[in-house]
Parts: sequence; C-alpha cells; structure tokens
Amino acid sequence: MFEAVELGQKVSKEEFDEALTDLRTRLIQAQTAFAKYPGPLIIILNGMDGAGKGELMNYLGGLMDLRNIIIKTFWQENEAEKNKPFYWRYWMSLPYRGHIGFFFGAWYAGEMLEAAKGNTSTAEYERRMKRAATFESMLADDGAVFVKFWFHLSRKTSKKKTDDLKKKFGKGEILERAMWHREKYDAIVKAAERGIRLTDHSKARWHLIEADDKRHRTLKALRIIVETLEAAVASIGAKQKTDKKTVSLAPPVLSKVDLSLTAEYEEYKKRLPEMQERLNSLAWKAYEKKRSTIAVFEGWDAAGKGSAIRRIVQGTDIRLASVISIAAPTDEEKAHHYLWRFWRHIPSAGFITVYDRSWYGRVLVERVEKFAAENEWSRSFEEINDFEEHLTESGIILVKFWVHIDMEEQLKRFKERENLPWKQYKITDEDWRNREKWDMYEQAANETITRTSTGHAPWNLIAGNDKKYARLKILETMCRAMEEKL
Amino acid sequence: MFEAVELGQKVSKEEFDEALTDLRTRLIQAQTAFAKYPGPLIIILNGMDGAGKGELMNYLGGLMDLRNIIIKTFWQENEAEKNKPFYWRYWMSLPYRGHIGFFFGAWYAGEMLEAAKGNTSTAEYERRMKRAATFESMLADDGAVFVKFWFHLSRKTSKKKTDDLKKKFGKGEILERAMWHREKYDAIVKAAERGIRLTDHSKARWHLIEADDKRHRTLKALRIIVETLEAAVASIGAKQKTDKKTVSLAPPVLSKVDLSLTAEYEEYKKRLPEMQERLNSLAWKAYEKKRSTIAVFEGWDAAGKGSAIRRIVQGTDIRLASVISIAAPTDEEKAHHYLWRFWRHIPSAGFITVYDRSWYGRVLVERVEKFAAENEWSRSFEEINDFEEHLTESGIILVKFWVHIDMEEQLKRFKERENLPWKQYKITDEDWRNREKWDMYEQAANETITRTSTGHAPWNLIAGNDKKYARLKILETMCRAMEEKL
Repeated sequence: MFEAVELGQKVSKEEFDEALTDLRTRLIQAQTAFAKYPGPLIIILNGMDGAGKGELMNYLGGLMDLRNIIIKTFWQENEAEKNKPFYWRYWMSLPYRGHIGFFFGAWYAGEMLEAAKGNTSTAEYERRMKRAATFESMLADDGAVFVKFWFHLSRKTSKKKTDDLKKKFGKGEILERAMWHREKYDAIVKAAERGIRLTDHSKARWHLIEADDKRHRTLKALRIIVETLEAAVASIGAKQKTDKKTVSLAPPVLSKVDLSLTAEYEEYKKRLPEMQERLNSLAWKAYEKKRSTIAVFEGWDAAGKGSAIRRIVQGTDIRLASVISIAAPTDEEKAHHYLWRFWRHIPSAGFITVYDRSWYGRVLVERVEKFAAENEWSRSFEEINDFEEHLTESGIILVKFWVHIDMEEQLKRFKERENLPWKQYKITDEDWRNREKWDMYEQAANETITRTSTGHAPWNLIAGNDKKYARLKILETMCRAMEEKL
Repeated sequence: MFEAVELGQKVSKEEFDEALTDLRTRLIQAQTAFAKYPGPLIIILNGMDGAGKGELMNYLGGLMDLRNIIIKTFWQENEAEKNKPFYWRYWMSLPYRGHIGFFFGAWYAGEMLEAAKGNTSTAEYERRMKRAATFESMLADDGAVFVKFWFHLSRKTSKKKTDDLKKKFGKGEILERAMWHREKYDAIVKAAERGIRLTDHSKARWHLIEADDKRHRTLKALRIIVETLEAAVASIGAKQKTDKKTVSLAPPVLSKVDLSLTAEYEEYKKRLPEMQERLNSLAWKAYEKKRSTIAVFEGWDAAGKGSAIRRIVQGTDIRLASVISIAAPTDEEKAHHYLWRFWRHIPSAGFITVYDRSWYGRVLVERVEKFAAENEWSRSFEEINDFEEHLTESGIILVKFWVHIDMEEQLKRFKERENLPWKQYKITDEDWRNREKWDMYEQAANETITRTSTGHAPWNLIAGNDKKYARLKILETMCRAMEEKL
C-alpha cells in the first residue's frame, strides 16, 4: 500500500508560496463558515516517527483561528483515564459541533505500536481496529467529519533522519526512540498497513501522505483539510437523507411478565434489611476489587423506580453509591453525540452508580415523542449495544432493570400521588399525557428490550404491581449480578 | 460553645411523627419551588464521629426528590485532585443554581482533624478557616445559600457509642477509628469550636445540633433545612440590593507604557528561535518538576495577543502546551459562579496553559458592556486576587500580560485586517463598536491592573505598537518567570 506514496514527490518553494496564498484564505474562510456545521471535524494525525506531524500542526496553528480548535496528543494516560473504559478519554476529548479537533495518534497509535511489537494477536488487533471503525461510523452518523492522515517516510528518509539525530545528540531518549523505530521499520509498516486497511471506510477515509519532503506533505495535508472543510460547508443546510421506515414487530415481551407476583409484608420486613446488608458488603468488596457497578432503571411512570433506587442507596454506604437522574441535556451535551453525556458520568473503578432513566431514553421517549428522527433512534440499538459492551469489557458490572406495571396499577398510583401532599411533586401533566400513549410506549419498550438484551447486558424484567415484591427482586438481582462477577 | 447543645433534648415518637407529617410536605414543596432560585443550596454535614450524619442523609434522601440533589462525601482524594489546587474538587462539586448539594465534611473535616492532631499551627489553621469563610462568602454573593451543621455528641454518648461498637465488633477498622475519636474527644472539640467560631459568618451560619437523640437531631436538622428553603423560595424575584456606586479614580497606568519601544528585524530573527528553544527546555523542566504554568493574555483588540500566543505555542512541545480561548459561557457555566469555568480548566501539574482572554473579562468587557451589575464586577477584584492566590499557592506559575497599543495603531491594524483576505475573520463589527468605547475600556483596564497587580501575580504591561518587540518581550518575561520558580 505504501509504495503508492514512495514517489519522491517534492514541492519547490515557489510552488509552495503560490499555492499557499490561495489556500490560507480558503482555509480560514472555510473554518469560519464551518462553525455552523452540525458536527465536528476530527483530523487524525498518524504516521512514522519523525514524519513531521508536530511540525505540521504548528504550521496549521499559524494559519487557523485557534479559538474553535482542540489539539489532543493522548501521549499520557492519567489515573482517572486508567480507571475508565478505553474509549472514555476519546469521548471526553471530542470537539463540539462546528469545532475542529486535531488528534495525534488518536485511537490508533497505541494499538498499532502494540501490534508492531507483536503484543497483540492477529484476531485481537482486527477486533480493536473494527471497534475503532465502529466508533468513527457512529460519530459520523451523528454528523462528525473525519480526516485521517498517515504520514509515510521511506526507509531511506527514515534512516537519514536517525543518522542526523545521532550526529546532533550522540545519545539520549529522543535518539533511542528514533533508533527503535528505525529498527522496527518493517514491523511498523506492516501493522500500520493492516490497521489502515481494516479502518478505511466511507465515513472516515485514510489519506496516505508521502512525508519525505516537508513542503510536499504540508501542502498536501493543507489541501485535503481545506477541501474537506469546503465540502462540509457546502453541505450545510442540505436535507439529510432519511433512511427508509423500518418495520418492527417486536415480540410482546412485557405482556409475559407475571404481574400477579407478590411478597408478604412479614417476608419483606425481614428480607429487605438482610438484602441491603448483603448489598453493602458487596459494595465494599467491589470497591476493594476496583470493580464498578452500573444499575440502570427504566419502566413506566410510577412503576416504582424511584422508591426501589432509594432502597438500594439507603442500604449502601453513602461513600460508594450515587444516583444519576437523567434530565434534559444541557447545551454542552447537545453539542455532542447523544451518548456523550453518559460517557461523561461513567464511574471511576470501584463505585456504584444508579441511573434513574438512562441512554434508553433515545429509543423510548425520544422515539415516541419524535425528538429523534427514525434514522437516528433506529441506529441507536447497535450504538447502545456497543456502548454497553465497552462498559462490561472494561470490567463494569452492568445491571438493567425494566420495572413493569399495568395500566390499572398506574392509574391507582397516579391518583394516590395527587392525593398525598408529599407525593404531588411526582405527578405532572406530562405523566398523564404519556399515559395516553401507552401503546406506543409499550411497542417501543418491547422492541428495545428485544434488541438490547445481550449476553453481556441482559434486561431484568421486574413485576412491579406489588412494590414489596419488586424491591426484593431488584435487590436480589443486583446482589446476584455482583456476586457472580466478584 | 458546645455546652449549649448538651441539654439532653429528646423527642418522643409521637412528637416526631406528628411534626413529620407537616414537615415532609413542606420540604418537598419548598424543594420543588427552590428549582427557580438563582443560586444553589449547600448543606454541610459535619460533626463528631458516630453522630449520625450518614443516617440523616439516608433519611432525608427518602423524603426528598433526588433529581436535583448532589451528595458528596469527599472521603478520597483522587490523582487528578491531588494535582490541582486544594479547592478545585469543591468547585467541581458545586451544584447548579436551584439544586441542592449535601457535602459531608466539605472543606472543614480534614482541616479540623489535622488541627486536632496538632499538625497545623494556630496561625495556619486560622488562615485556612478564613479562606473557607471567604470561599463561602464569594459563593453567597453569587446567590448560594448555606446551611452548615455541626452534630455534637456529649462525652457520655460518645463513650457509650464506642462501648456498643466494642461489644458488636470486638476489633476492626471501624472500632479502631471510633476509639481514636473517643480518645481525642477533647482535642476534636477544641479544634471544632475554634474552626466554627472562625467561620461562622452572616452569609454561612453554623447550626449546632445536639446529636445524642436520633429523633431530636433528625427533626432539628429537617426543620432548619425546610425553613432555609422556604425563606429562599420566598425571596425569589425580590429585587437584589444593589451596592452603592463605587468611585474609582485609577491611576493611568496604561498611559505610562512606552509605546516607542521597538526591536530590529535582525535581532528579532535571531532571538525569537533562541527564546522559543529556551521556553521549550523550561516547559520540559516544569513537566519533570510537576509545576504548571498559566499565561494570561489581555489587551486591546488587535494588540497582537493571538500572534504572541502562536509564538509561544509554536516554540513549545505540542504535548505540553495548550491554548484556551475564552468565549461566551455555556449554560452549564452560567449555572455556576463565574469563576467556575476557569477552575474547570485548571491544568494538571506539569503543563502550560495559555489563556487568550480570561477571568478578567468580568471586570473589563462585562463591566463596560454592563453584562455584570456594578456590585457584581466590583467585588470581583478581590475574588480574582483570591483565585490567583489559590493558583500560585498550589505551585502554579502565573504570568499575566496586558498587551498595550494606542488608538492609532489599532486603526491601522483594523484596516489591514479588512484588506487581507486571510485576516478578515479577525475583524468584526463588534471590534469597531468596542473601539468607540476606548475611554471606558481604558478606565476599566487601569483600575483592573491597579487592583489586581499583586505580589503573587503582578501584571506585565507590554508595549505592543511594535509586534516584534512585544513578542520578544513576552517570551523573555515568560521564560524569566518560569526560571525563577523552577
């Protein structure tokens, strides 16, 4: 693959200066107009050691408006990052819509290096590269534009560069690093080629750039960036293509929940504190083992999610457990992919986080209320499954609850809420409106549960008509899930 | 002081239940209405070991709407926090306006314990307590409401509690901790009394609560919270009292800047790369020593801030330096004290952050354009001085630049920007409008520079009419500041 960029291409100073006069103006104008683009531009700078990536960045920095730019080098993983899933740091670095991010190495450099060292099996490398491509596709579906650069140095130039360094330094860290890369030239080229092939897809193309000549590589990269920006700007306001309507006939999983299940008061009184103590011990054990737990609660309004969550939190040391209630996204959150705000709150290793509603809002309320277009929510099933796989793979214990009640029980509880002064805050007009759309919500719920009940993150359907039964069942399920993994 | 809360107060179950019926409704109603309050409610839970703070929290959690509540225990300082100024974690934990935060121990518990152990000198303890009070005052000025609880246990009850623990556990960590607190009873009481006295001020009052009887302490705390919430809610919409107009006749510091200073092209060509290399070495040295550097740039539009910043960034390893350009605050930022968004971006130890405009916007553009009321911006001088003291005390090297030009030079540059296609993005109608208010900006600048040029963070006034001179001077100043501290 890299033969194509060993052509000895060179650019003279005159050519360069002439091209620049035009390009710098187009660049800054396109960047200014791009501020209105409904997605970020992510420029990935990758390539051989010494190929001039940093130099290029400095040069571009001199031409561009630094105000909407993020530059990330990812060269050091800090403690907080080590305690989170691998992609967390990349999520947290993503630029806002209309902004530009320059990512050095991004999610590639480390993986390619490990592969070049022979530390990653062929299958594992392929899996990780596919995951990178999936990540990019997901962001691209949400509007992100990608430019992925690979700066290639011929063996000859690579050799010459290290010779120059040797003369300059004689010894030292920089030289050692360069020598290592020179020795591993073939292995690095091989790993990079394979990685590039596995991750070159229509939503995020690689651009191979011959990097031996500084003016050539600078001009080439500049042209690609300018043209990408201009193309994006030209498409602002164009109608997004809408996927065809999907037909979904989900099995009626909710109707199979046995709502007649109950627990006796005596049993409840006895077992609740027992289970809470068990959960508390598990919480400490998880803390010691640095395993996080995420419990997700979805279900009908008034199904008893809130009171079940209270039983969990009350039973657990306040230092170890916290609750996140999902409200409307803030403007910072809206300026990112919808999963961003959930990545944002991923707990550090060892803690319990309970979600009162969650990322499933995308395929439930946002679907039914049409806040998300069909092509948006329908692709979210895969995105959510991927997201949860990231969580569980990083060692997080994920427990998902759907608390189910029937319409009659809901009506009873709504009325009770209206009558008890300290419960009135829980009932709003919106609850009554949602109730009228019961069938649509049920259909959405059935499809959601069917599509997102995966091996690594199955749904637990909880019969909620009897609150005592539901609470015991939830605590029991949560304890079991934790015991299994600890 | 604590004798006042050793009265043996008790509440019977009947009294408790009766009071609760009324209070729980008022609590939830007041909490719901508080969502519109223009500041957060911060409830600090402090007190003797075993006084039931966690128990109270669990109880309150059962009565309140958990959705607008943050509970923070601050029991563990993570790596990220250790690499930031002491108050960073508290800033980052602050609830939004209209939300409620329960802070266990908050900025007190650790300090009081150290004082009780005799690890803090009397003067140092006083200084830290004063700093806590200043922090609270500042937030209160911005709308925050405080309730600070100290739960007091009599020596007798404290003794009984540990005896009970001894019977229950025989040995172990919890018992050891309790025994330690029992032995140190007098020292803890003494440190707490002093700390409370030093930090009890009208904007954030302490409430001492006799904690021997569970129902008494619960009811007491509940009442105080309900009444505080109700008082806050009652004041929503009330006109804020505006401080009297301040008269400020700042000395004309800017007019003393010698704008005739220039640098020759040859000198510039030679010294710029030298200085950049020097800065780069210093950046690496600072990285090794884990010392952060913050460079702040303020000055007239077109004064050359941006191009000076480019010279800094270009000269420094891209992994070590980053630029933050201050734009309009996001809604998450607006939901906090205006300094929150600057605390948010404080670099981890070892890195350089360059601010293109900064927290000084509060006393410059926000003042002149009347985005901030006079009582808001006028108190910001002290707030900013405090903020910068936090930074420098934590080891951050802070360098502040005011880049000065005269009106004539600005006009020349504005016109040049309009004529060069790749500079047009830099000139907007707003720049022309600001220019018309030159005198008001100059007055604000003179006052700002005078009031915020402190021993720990002096201003560097840079003559900017000659760009070459300004850039060399800035790089030189920055290198010197770093050399001095490294």
